[in-house]
Amino acid sequence: MLDLATRVYNHSFKIDPIVRSLLDTDFYKLLMAQTIFRRRRDTRVTFGIQNRSTRVRLADFVDEGELREQLDHARSLRLSRGEATWLRGNTFYGQRQMFAPDFMDWLEGFRLPEYELEARDGQYVLTFHGPWIETTMWEVPALSILNELRTRGVVRHMGKLELQVLYARAMTRVWEKIERLRALPDLSIADFGTRRRHGFLWQDWCVEAMGAGLGDRFLGTSNCLIALRREVEAVGTNAHELPMVYSALADDDAALARAPYDVLADWQQDYGGNLLVMLPDTYGTSGFLAHAPDWINAWTGIRIDSKEPIAGGEEAIAWWRSRGSDPREKLAIFSDGLDIDTIESIHAHFHGRMRIGYGWGTLLTNDFRGLVPDGRLDPISIVCKVIDADGRPTVKISDNPSKAIGPEAEVARYRRVFETPDADAMPVLV
Amino acid sequence: MLDLATRVYNHSFKIDPIVRSLLDTDFYKLLMAQTIFRRRRDTRVTFGIQNRSTRVRLADFVDEGELREQLDHARSLRLSRGEATWLRGNTFYGQRQMFAPDFMDWLEGFRLPEYELEARDGQYVLTFHGPWIETTMWEVPALSILNELRTRGVVRHMGKLELQVLYARAMTRVWEKIERLRALPDLSIADFGTRRRHGFLWQDWCVEAMGAGLGDRFLGTSNCLIALRREVEAVGTNAHELPMVYSALADDDAALARAPYDVLADWQQDYGGNLLVMLPDTYGTSGFLAHAPDWINAWTGIRIDSKEPIAGGEEAIAWWRSRGSDPREKLAIFSDGLDIDTIESIHAHFHGRMRIGYGWGTLLTNDFRGLVPDGRLDPISIVCKVIDADGRPTVKISDNPSKAIGPEAEVARYRRVFETPDADAMPVLV
Repeated sequence: MLDLATRVYNHSFKIDPIVRSLLDTDFYKLLMAQTIFRRRRDTRVTFGIQNRSTRVRLADFVDEGELREQLDHARSLRLSRGEATWLRGNTFYGQRQMFAPDFMDWLEGFRLPEYELEARDGQYVLTFHGPWIETTMWEVPALSILNELRTRGVVRHMGKLELQVLYARAMTRVWEKIERLRALPDLSIADFGTRRRHGFLWQDWCVEAMGAGLGDRFLGTSNCLIALRREVEAVGTNAHELPMVYSALADDDAALARAPYDVLADWQQDYGGNLLVMLPDTYGTSGFLAHAPDWINAWTGIRIDSKEPIAGGEEAIAWWRSRGSDPREKLAIFSDGLDIDTIESIHAHFHGRMRIGYGWGTLLTNDFRGLVPDGRLDPISIVCKVIDADGRPTVKISDNPSKAIGPEAEVARYRRVFETPDADAMPVLV
Repeated sequence: MLDLATRVYNHSFKIDPIVRSLLDTDFYKLLMAQTIFRRRRDTRVTFGIQNRSTRVRLADFVDEGELREQLDHARSLRLSRGEATWLRGNTFYGQRQMFAPDFMDWLEGFRLPEYELEARDGQYVLTFHGPWIETTMWEVPALSILNELRTRGVVRHMGKLELQVLYARAMTRVWEKIERLRALPDLSIADFGTRRRHGFLWQDWCVEAMGAGLGDRFLGTSNCLIALRREVEAVGTNAHELPMVYSALADDDAALARAPYDVLADWQQDYGGNLLVMLPDTYGTSGFLAHAPDWINAWTGIRIDSKEPIAGGEEAIAWWRSRGSDPREKLAIFSDGLDIDTIESIHAHFHGRMRIGYGWGTLLTNDFRGLVPDGRLDPISIVCKVIDADGRPTVKISDNPSKAIGPEAEVARYRRVFETPDADAMPVLV
């Protein structure tokens, strides 16, 4: 039976919006936003898109007009009453009223700020200038839009049957990964794949599949809208932008050396429990851990991001021991470029030695590798990073030199201040 | 957007019919029916279901009431005007008006006759008594109904996501086979999978996928309804029931020895061209070919069914040569238990030495092997065979003794008359 109403309604779409809600973002953006709101809301911060997969010339096949339409649509969004009620009333990480009334009042009035867009050398230069509290909110929608427009540009040329086979293969692939995950003892895994997903509907399906396949071993999703609609946990912690901005604002080397710890000091005023997971790699994990003040010993865990995961986990265990903690009571969250093989080897190596969590991103929600010719649906390594704060350039070094960001002289200064060792560059997969 | 009308309409189903048209049958049934109609329409013939996969106790999980509802629904069907117009007006095998007006008049008035059903030892004994022209028409709907009721019995306990994954895996499997088929030079392949399909919608999807993946290397489908709706060729030739009934009706050994050739003599009065494909294995291929009258040398091809395909193809080539024909102008149709591996090895062995066609059945339209626990969707070897004709038992020996049918004494007599050699039994897969 033809659903005439749906067909006619679909005909009259002006655009088919990619981002349909301000909650279609990662939970960590809201957590960080509240911290920023309380302390640094008016710091002028620039964010910018960087496509590290330069071979993929996005501007050649993502139409600029369509991109502007999608970005403009995202700017028209306001938090709905139901969404605000959920944020105000829901329990996150076991805590009620995680978001304070003043922050919620601000968020209910919030709209995404202006953007600057131009195409240059086959890439889009997409930049956001303004108060940190506003520009920070662009990261996830900007990335989701670019990724899904790229997807749409490929799938619009495919026939109905090709599409069926494409998604059949992708579903089969995800499900086979989930079946392998089921074999891992004491698994705890979450979806961290909003930013670089194939598309919203596909991420939503992946979350459904993870829940159906893993039960309570699936911790939840970083996507707030999907968490709300599917009634699963919204999860996330914090990202490099906090230490990067705090560090850029430091007036001298001593303040710079303190800045990453100032982030944690502020954070633990706002959050507790399983949200006390530090991200130590912004300027090199080893230096960060070596110089960490004693009060950080009480934190719940460490996120192991840019470091090779086995080495990163061993370093965390050694550090906890050196600080008199039992690693088995501590939490390591692995979140960089995970796929089923890496998850299995991390689990085989560390299971029983510490608590382990996985934040599974791009290769959960966008593993279309090889499913169309020339890898045109393979995920790309695209990020939206903070570039400057109150006019000062930001720097990121990480444990993987190929992810370093910032002017050369500043990078050198940071390396000196944070005693960042030279490390071998690892290829950036996603 | 909820399609309320569809939901409400679906709610009010009394049953969801499996067979919705008399054309949801194999094309060879109509070809044979016309030959029967012209010569032996009033012969009393009994057909009966036999489930060779005795481990699958169909009566234990296919509800008898539901089975009766489906069979009764099939009995309520009449050829629609559009369907009759298609049979009368369409071109089949390049020929117009393949079905004569008197046969079409009969078919337009036809309904499926009564059936007898009881459950015994975990299996259904489902039998059809009556004029051959009527009982022959039950074969395909009876088998489709039993197979799809079995499918429904399994899938009704599955959740939405499990179903999505099930069909995603099955689609992926079919498509990967099609991609391998694309690599075969000069391929010509048809769907022969109506009888033992997973379900109607699934067969329809398989036909769509074969067309999309293979273009004109996909010859068509044996399913008349799908051929009509998708505007692809309806294909098929003839089956063992013709020589089995002709042989049962033979009054002495000399008439018995002639009977299989009488079938071909009648058939070539009715059909020509690529429909002149003989099925030589009913009482053993070797004897059939050795004693074939010279006029059979003019036939287009041979269907290689119960014999091991490489041996069967070599035998056909040797026979054509012995009769002074060039095998490269002859057609061999392989149709028994085919899957992608067997197709590839047959093609590798025979390509270029003769024309080759594949009638791909169960493992195209019902390859759900291993996709649910305990193989509960694995295809079963179920057939609907002629049992007696005018009160005389029918016999089938074939090149594979495990497929032999008939009373022991009659089988011995047929073996003697047809000089059937002893052959090794091959396992019956599907």
